Amino acid sequence: MLISVPATSANLGPGFDTLGVALDLRNVVRIKRSRFFSISIKGEGANNFKLKGNNLFISIFNEHYRKLTGKTDRFRFTFYNKIPLSRGLGSSSAVIVSAIAAAYAMAGVAISKEKILNLALTYEPHPDNITPAVMGGFTVSTVEDGKVYSLKKEMPSHLKAVVAVPNRPISTAHSRTRLPKRYPMADIVYNLSRSSLLTAAIFSERWDMLKIASKDRLHQDIRMKAMPELFELQKLALESGALMSTLSGSGSTFFSMSEEHHAQKLAEILKRRFNAFDVRVLDFDNKGLLIEE
Amino acid sequence: MLISVPATSANLGPGFDTLGVALDLRNVVRIKRSRFFSISIKGEGANNFKLKGNNLFISIFNEHYRKLTGKTDRFRFTFYNKIPLSRGLGSSSAVIVSAIAAAYAMAGVAISKEKILNLALTYEPHPDNITPAVMGGFTVSTVEDGKVYSLKKEMPSHLKAVVAVPNRPISTAHSRTRLPKRYPMADIVYNLSRSSLLTAAIFSERWDMLKIASKDRLHQDIRMKAMPELFELQKLALESGALMSTLSGSGSTFFSMSEEHHAQKLAEILKRRFNAFDVRVLDFDNKGLLIEE
Repeated sequence: MLISVPATSANLGPGFDTLGVALDLRNVVRIKRSRFFSISIKGEGANNFKLKGNNLFISIFNEHYRKLTGKTDRFRFTFYNKIPLSRGLGSSSAVIVSAIAAAYAMAGVAISKEKILNLALTYEPHPDNITPAVMGGFTVSTVEDGKVYSLKKEMPSHLKAVVAVPNRPISTAHSRTRLPKRYPMADIVYNLSRSSLLTAAIFSERWDMLKIASKDRLHQDIRMKAMPELFELQKLALESGALMSTLSGSGSTFFSMSEEHHAQKLAEILKRRFNAFDVRVLDFDNKGLLIEE
Repeated sequence: MLISVPATSANLGPGFDTLGVALDLRNVVRIKRSRFFSISIKGEGANNFKLKGNNLFISIFNEHYRKLTGKTDRFRFTFYNKIPLSRGLGSSSAVIVSAIAAAYAMAGVAISKEKILNLALTYEPHPDNITPAVMGGFTVSTVEDGKVYSLKKEMPSHLKAVVAVPNRPISTAHSRTRLPKRYPMADIVYNLSRSSLLTAAIFSERWDMLKIASKDRLHQDIRMKAMPELFELQKLALESGALMSTLSGSGSTFFSMSEEHHAQKLAEILKRRFNAFDVRVLDFDNKGLLIEE
């Protein structure tokens, strides 16, 4: 059994805890029944023994598998991880989603993507990464009574993501506690109107609107202060032809969108100036969670 | 020359100062060159002599006409007003938009709808009524450096608006000052996510999503306290098949959306319970401002 889940970029500027998009960069886990429990991690996190010992995937998988079957069977888990850890690209959402999907698949119990998404919400209270991780594409999500309500728009192939991954993280928890407790209406309307306009722009493919619609006043600047070179990176990206350029989740990765013909050029410009960053051109993903026998 | 502008319903629940929709209920003004200045008002406001004496339309019209022509010519203005005054249906936005459009038309100077919208913003600082008034349809707007950026989705003819107009107003100014100065992030995300999801739902015609996506935590309840029967009206509308039911602008009108086949029934249910309200079934308008020779 092969389970794979894409990387995701959340918030997209104004869309705090709401907007997200899936990127064609997948974590894959292969699961086989086995006489002995075993786990091996290749790629991102391969050398992180702390991660291996206390694996979030295994604990979520076991919880659901036991609930579904009443048993504790043994499996051989092999992780092929491509999503950078703790860089705002949805690696923990990918773990949560793949663990739930894997438990149902190995238990032989059919489950809808909607149900997987709602189960994932019990581990990750914000839907902005888990929704595109499960559904793929660009997604808009809200939560009502512990359930995710979301809509999806497939991203066209002529657009690419240019992600700039710094060599160190900004902690989500630390970053979230730095945000103000309360905001004035002017800032609220600033983001609410832009998040709505960004949604309209993507659903109607009005890419010319992204630059104005992707501006934020609630969280980005506060978070970017922990890594001030991101201000310069954002400015450079927007001046160099990016359609939009936003902090990915709570960082530290910066996400830019570009027309296909310009993406490689944009990546080179960013790479030249920020040579300690891992700059990559990625396709968008429209499939989300995949389960293969 | 005939200028006409539709009624509008703004906010639509979570989309504070951002979302709006145009309704097929038009204020029309007929303008003719004349030896004497004259003004007559038919329909809404016909008996309001204070309004006639200090007419917002005339002052905006004169300001622009003088600027465009250097002259103060004389006209005969006849207003055929259908939009109820001070009930949250965009009557003042209609006046502003039609006055600007009329000045340019009578001066013989071509002007785009985008430019009319940006001029209207100098009289009405929130774009949520003036955008659908000019453009028609469902609109999402934001303001950046004194300019409106907006996107529009045409409303399908199988949907109708059911508006319930109380026999008294809630003052906008009064209502706006009652709102809290600052809001916590939980309430912000509540509205930001729903305004974005409501936008996605309308752009992708997922009408089943409107009920969840149209909920608000920033302004409606506070404003509705000035007219408590509106809580009961909203509940009744949603229980009686409305796809969504929201305070229109800052009130006092309540706006509900319904499938065509159910709209008359919904209106009757509301009318029976709230017999002092003027309950009407309206088409949506997709044309916005119209200028006819």
